[in-house]
This record gives sequence, C-alpha cells and structure tokens, in this order.
Amino acid sequence: MERIKCTLQYDGTFFSGFQVQPDQRTVQGDIEAALRRMHRNQLVRITASGRTDTGVHALGQVFHYDTDLELTEEKWKKALNSLLPDDIYITDVEKVSNDFHARFNVKIKEYRYKLLNQKKPDIFHRHHYWHIYQDLDVEKMRQAGEYLIGTHDFTSFCSTKTEVQGDKIRTIYNVEILQDDPVLTVSVQGSGFLYNMVRIITGTLVEVGQGKVSPDEVKAILEGKDRTLAGLTAPPQGLYLWQVVYQE
Amino acid sequence: MERIKCTLQYDGTFFSGFQVQPDQRTVQGDIEAALRRMHRNQLVRITASGRTDTGVHALGQVFHYDTDLELTEEKWKKALNSLLPDDIYITDVEKVSNDFHARFNVKIKEYRYKLLNQKKPDIFHRHHYWHIYQDLDVEKMRQAGEYLIGTHDFTSFCSTKTEVQGDKIRTIYNVEILQDDPVLTVSVQGSGFLYNMVRIITGTLVEVGQGKVSPDEVKAILEGKDRTLAGLTAPPQGLYLWQVVYQE
Repeated sequence: MERIKCTLQYDGTFFSGFQVQPDQRTVQGDIEAALRRMHRNQLVRITASGRTDTGVHALGQVFHYDTDLELTEEKWKKALNSLLPDDIYITDVEKVSNDFHARFNVKIKEYRYKLLNQKKPDIFHRHHYWHIYQDLDVEKMRQAGEYLIGTHDFTSFCSTKTEVQGDKIRTIYNVEILQDDPVLTVSVQGSGFLYNMVRIITGTLVEVGQGKVSPDEVKAILEGKDRTLAGLTAPPQGLYLWQVVYQE
Repeated sequence: MERIKCTLQYDGTFFSGFQVQPDQRTVQGDIEAALRRMHRNQLVRITASGRTDTGVHALGQVFHYDTDLELTEEKWKKALNSLLPDDIYITDVEKVSNDFHARFNVKIKEYRYKLLNQKKPDIFHRHHYWHIYQDLDVEKMRQAGEYLIGTHDFTSFCSTKTEVQGDKIRTIYNVEILQDDPVLTVSVQGSGFLYNMVRIITGTLVEVGQGKVSPDEVKAILEGKDRTLAGLTAPPQGLYLWQVVYQE
C-alpha cells in the first residue's frame, strides 16, 4: 500500500460542494469515481484537508488516498486528469509516508476572497467574484483586518448553522488586502477556520470599506462573541481555498 | 410607435444560441420574455444584427424593436436589465428613427476570437477561451491574416452546413492579432460573415501559428474555394461578437 497526496484546483460553480452526497455532483464524488475506474471498480476513499461549500472554488486543495496500484507520480497525474471532468485539475501528485494525513497534519490554510470593485457589470465573471459596485476604502479595510490577527474566540465570525462542537478559538496568522484594480483580494491565513468564517470576515470588511462600520468597531465585534454583531456572509462564488501548508 | 435600438452583452455558455427555438434557452427568447412582461403579455419581436451560435458570446450585439410604451432611454435600460437573467446585460438603449434596421443597416461587424496560449490548464476560463497549449508563432499568423483582407470569395472559410444561398463573396476590412500574454485575440472586421467564417479563419490561423500551414498557403486556400483546404473550425467558446457599426 502506498499513500498518495494530490493537490488540485476546481471551479466550484457546478458542484454541490466538495463532500460526497447522494444524488449530487460533488468534487469528492467525481474524484472517487475516477479512482474507482482505475481500481477495478473498487471504492477508494479520499481524505481532503477539509470541505468547501457549494460554489466555492479551490486553487490548492489537498487530499490523500491509499492504493496498491504501482504508478509513478507523473502517471498518476496524467491518468487522473484524463478521467476527471474539465472543472477539476490535479496540479501535483506526491508519494508520501503513511503518517501523512491531509486533514490532521494541516499547519496553515490560506483562503482568498475575490471582490470585483467597479461600477459597470461584468457578466463574464459572475461565478468567480463578488461584485461590489460602490467604492471601497481599502485603507480602512486593512486597519480592520489587523484586529483579527492573533488567537481569538471567533464566535462572532462563525455561522450559527455550524455543526462543530467545542470552542471557537482559532489563530489567524495574517489578513491582507491585495489590490489589483478592479479586483480586491482578501487573503486570510490561519491554523483552521470555523464554518463560513472567511465569508463572514469578508462581509464585515466590505461593510468597513463602505463606511457602514468603522475599523475600531471590528475589535468590539470580535470581543462581543455574537454572530449578529458581524456583517453579512459574503456569497460563495468569490471564495477560493488557496493553499494548504503541512507540518514537516 | 417608437423604435428602440439596444446594445447588449451576453455570456453564451448557457444559451442554445441567439435565435429563438422551441424548448431551448436562447438570448432572443429571454429578451422577448422580458419585453412581454413589460407589454401586458403581448409578444414584442426583436430583430438583431444577426444570430450567434451556441456557446458564442457578445460584447456589442445590437437589436431593435418597436413599442408604444413611453419610457426614457435610461428607464428602458433599467427596466430591461432588472427583468433579464445575470448572463445578459443591456449596455445601451437609444431611440432611433423608424428607418433604422439592426440587420439591414450594418456597415461593419467586428468579431474577436480569444485564444489562451499557455502550457498550464486554466479551468476557470474554460468557457471563454480556446486553450492552445503549444507555442504559436504570432508573426506568421499576422502574415497569413494579411491575405484575407479585401474582397474575396470565402467559400473555403464557410461551413458546408450553411443554409445561405447566393455568393460567398465578402469584404474583410482588417485582420489583427492582439497580443496580451497569455491571451491572443484574433480581431476580424468585415462587411458581413458566412456561417462559421471567423471560427474557420481562426482554426486556420492557429494551424499557421503551429507551423502546420505556411502563411503563403493561406492565399492558396482562399483561391481554392474549397472548405476542405482550410483548417478546423475553432470551438465556439472563444468567439465574441465584439461590435456592430451602422451606416449613418
């Protein structure tokens, strides 16, 4: 048995999220279907770094699986890509030791949220950005983002629909706003994320950029530990799981 | 009765082309449904500069219609856009005289064909470019394009599936290759176009860029008046009806 680590991209537009579900098109479902074809119709379960929701994209999602097929890394990549649909692409295949685990060994995850900030509509990119027509004050968004860096209880930035039990304490290593007109990208790096956390952070930062909320208020929102204090949940189509960094 | 001229964009990915067809989602069908809602359930037929095929996009398509509703240009634009789906957008509304005709008065049409020329896949833009992985010799493509400029019999560059009777003589005013790495755009301006003409021109220029056909051979292909001499028909998703210029 060998353990294989795959890094992949997907356009989440036409998937009901990552995780396999009956009668739904999912990223995991399509990958396991491809692996099944390579393993004489045997189910090969994959384990990802985490799930993503309907409409959310990935540039650097990671999963692993175990196999008794003997192929080179290059051949795995070719074979899988030839069996996968055109909205999933495996960028890298690596043979790893059996103690590698795509979920448990995560050190840092980076999500990026892409905002299209311009007055005119752009119908061609409607599945890949959240379009904000009003001017955003990027400096204020940056100031607000600073308050989120560090280890905090992020209850205010977690969907109340979460199934996760336990504490809401997470560590954010960095929040950056990258400006490449007319695209603004909110990059958030952290040890782990609560349900909808990056989308609620983005929704709140957009309200800061619009002048509805002051940067200082974000500190109070965080300390209030109450979801109703933060901004709305940004829509899924602007969100990208950008990269997953593992412990050595 | 007033005649209204509309300029519009659409993402052709999820339409079965422009022209209305039973039980298919078409651009014309969606626009006429919006107009019907504004005209007490009466059919208002629109006339476009021409049709586009399934998967083909538009940045500057034009249509006209006649109406007895009295609205300002700005109100027409707002009302129509609020009733149209998010893959159609009216960019301009203009009240015109009754002798304006969106098809008969066309002076110049420009189509642009977008090629993505890079070695790595780009799953996020699969509906908007034709991806060519192999390096293209742009200078040779430019040389080949020169032979197409002027008034010629374009039989070699017309699909044999055409329903159009009559001659295949058309005038091309300009063929340009715009380079914005990794995107190459083939711009073709002409008085009118045969069925699949821009897609066959592009398919042929790509074969020139790949070194399969020499620029000089394009002259012979044109003179041969035989569709089998030219290159393959480029796929629809890279094609954009870019602008339509009318007689004064």
